[in-house]
Amino acid sequence: MAERIEQIQERMAHEGLDALVLRLAENVLLATGYYVQIGGLAIAVIPRDGTPALMVPEYEGPGAAEVEVEVEVRTFAAIRFDAPPPGPAIEAHLRELIEAAGGTGGRVAYEGSFEAVAPPVLAGEPNAVALPTANLIRAASDGAELVDFTASLEEIRSIKTERDIERLTVVNEVAMIGLEAFKKYARPGITEVALAAEVEAAILRDGSGHRGARVVRGWATITSGPATADGWKYFISSTRTIERDDVVIIELGTVADGYWADHTRTVVAGTATPEQKAAFDAMRGGLAASFDAARPGVTGDAADAASREAVRAAGFEQFPHHTGHGTGFRYHESRPAITAGSEAVIEAGMVIACEPGIYEERIGGFRWEDDAVITADGARPLATSEYELD
Amino acid sequence: MAERIEQIQERMAHEGLDALVLRLAENVLLATGYYVQIGGLAIAVIPRDGTPALMVPEYEGPGAAEVEVEVEVRTFAAIRFDAPPPGPAIEAHLRELIEAAGGTGGRVAYEGSFEAVAPPVLAGEPNAVALPTANLIRAASDGAELVDFTASLEEIRSIKTERDIERLTVVNEVAMIGLEAFKKYARPGITEVALAAEVEAAILRDGSGHRGARVVRGWATITSGPATADGWKYFISSTRTIERDDVVIIELGTVADGYWADHTRTVVAGTATPEQKAAFDAMRGGLAASFDAARPGVTGDAADAASREAVRAAGFEQFPHHTGHGTGFRYHESRPAITAGSEAVIEAGMVIACEPGIYEERIGGFRWEDDAVITADGARPLATSEYELD
Repeated sequence: MAERIEQIQERMAHEGLDALVLRLAENVLLATGYYVQIGGLAIAVIPRDGTPALMVPEYEGPGAAEVEVEVEVRTFAAIRFDAPPPGPAIEAHLRELIEAAGGTGGRVAYEGSFEAVAPPVLAGEPNAVALPTANLIRAASDGAELVDFTASLEEIRSIKTERDIERLTVVNEVAMIGLEAFKKYARPGITEVALAAEVEAAILRDGSGHRGARVVRGWATITSGPATADGWKYFISSTRTIERDDVVIIELGTVADGYWADHTRTVVAGTATPEQKAAFDAMRGGLAASFDAARPGVTGDAADAASREAVRAAGFEQFPHHTGHGTGFRYHESRPAITAGSEAVIEAGMVIACEPGIYEERIGGFRWEDDAVITADGARPLATSEYELD
Repeated sequence: MAERIEQIQERMAHEGLDALVLRLAENVLLATGYYVQIGGLAIAVIPRDGTPALMVPEYEGPGAAEVEVEVEVRTFAAIRFDAPPPGPAIEAHLRELIEAAGGTGGRVAYEGSFEAVAPPVLAGEPNAVALPTANLIRAASDGAELVDFTASLEEIRSIKTERDIERLTVVNEVAMIGLEAFKKYARPGITEVALAAEVEAAILRDGSGHRGARVVRGWATITSGPATADGWKYFISSTRTIERDDVVIIELGTVADGYWADHTRTVVAGTATPEQKAAFDAMRGGLAASFDAARPGVTGDAADAASREAVRAAGFEQFPHHTGHGTGFRYHESRPAITAGSEAVIEAGMVIACEPGIYEERIGGFRWEDDAVITADGARPLATSEYELD
């Protein structure tokens, strides 16, 4: 973890920043390893030099004290109304920490441009950074210049550390529990929502505790039958009952302790036709080609093209949604974009999700997605499933 | 729905605003009734006078055309890369709509201060409104003055319409499916995470389709045994196995088509002691007292005090977390705060969740929470469950 703080502080020095205030669950996790229960209530303050601080509600103090990176943990009362209110307490801590960092009236960085956000533990109510946090930082720094650090954070987090890869491997393994449940239950007679429920239940029930994972959740969308021919545009599982020989697609996001995985699988609830098998093989070939191409120094455009060429060589046309994207600290990360025309350069340590899709009215929709870490030798999938189309 | 637009436009006139741009899933739902799949991709533009517009990806066009309120639906290509990119298309639509509203170089309102946000359909990746949306609106309005409309939106949405009450009744009924599953499965031998999984699965599987609900999801946290004595501070279900006679608490958020419900139940997985029964009765009495007190014109402080007094009269002390809060368009809404010292005035049409809790090391923790709409005759719970403590 310590290397993250060094990376951040190096960038801060380069940009002439005195302090960095992080409040989004995903960035507090990035910098400190702590995954907050209620979003917005954990705030990390990183000085350009020296030890970062992590402010949390007093009831999260014991958890925050266990993080691997060296941080000064500060607590404040929250939830309960028989103590000083959290707002002024947070501002007072922030004022002290920014002053100690030399940021008072100086240059303070913050998360100004995060418009897609990852949920905290209490995932039903995520937190954002908007005007109130900007005003809080201004007030606590005697009007320091606020600098948007979003692009720097996105760049820093696009390269995963060894610890990140370890945790991302765990969440990918947890996702496999869900994908095995999908294969098991994707049978005629079950509704899409009941199938999604089985997958999410398997992940929560059997994934919790997997290699120490504490906070586990799956987010499944099932599309079945004729609708799969437009399967790129649905994020709602319906009450439709799966029929024999239906094509069934699952889109699955999985989180374990704040680390994300993104997967897709397609099966036939019965027997696939030869043409469906050919489309399935073409899709799998596209995924393999994108992973083969995704070596350090290659552009997102090239990895995208490799998938499309493989699919075309197999006699199908890949749908023009992206071939892939970064993932890890959020379901979808902005770097690298693996799309036609993307100049993003793939680097060692990145984790990418590739998901080529083929959608045809005659045979249905086929998409398959895995996550891989980029090594000097190429893309290495973080987990696998063994099953095929039917 | 039309009354919402009138309320918003009246407030806009009062504040001298030319146009309002809404991009958060919960506020697009508030104004138009549309619940977007991918957050940030549905944008509502409301002129001070005249018909609102709703921009959505072309694949959401058919759904958007079905909303009950009169809107001009505009679409743009998204997800696919064989079409003009969404960013410039959104900006071009926005420019036209703001200009038609007379907002170019004028005063344009937006959601500047939402730091707690409700997830869209694709709930694993919520959207926020931060600098990029502010800059987009500025660019599309030739530098109009941006006015933060957050407080006005919170006030407007704190009073629910008849349609809102109908939809909130539906989500409360869906929540009862989860709470019945909780009672059924809260038995010795099940882990907390497995119990949470049963509840969430029941909600997704059996709640989808309930009175037309399309997008249904539950978010359950289970706390059991000795930990319930600090049950106000946990939002993580653990892998602990429930033992005979354990106290078990569920905290449950439920969403149906963008409308939220917030519930808590406490049971004993076996036989409750007389003292536990007394604490349970005191807690239920506190909830009843807060609902009895929550009449139009009463302050949040008074409703809070009513609960605390009832609990005290029964020989227990209510924990100093809030007694209640608004709910509906988000898991927790800011108005009205039902806490000690709250000057918020309870009004007819508000929907509140009250959740008094008693936590004692000797007997465990007890919390019960229901949602009620405020009528001229007082608070009317939106749904109920029949079971008791054991």
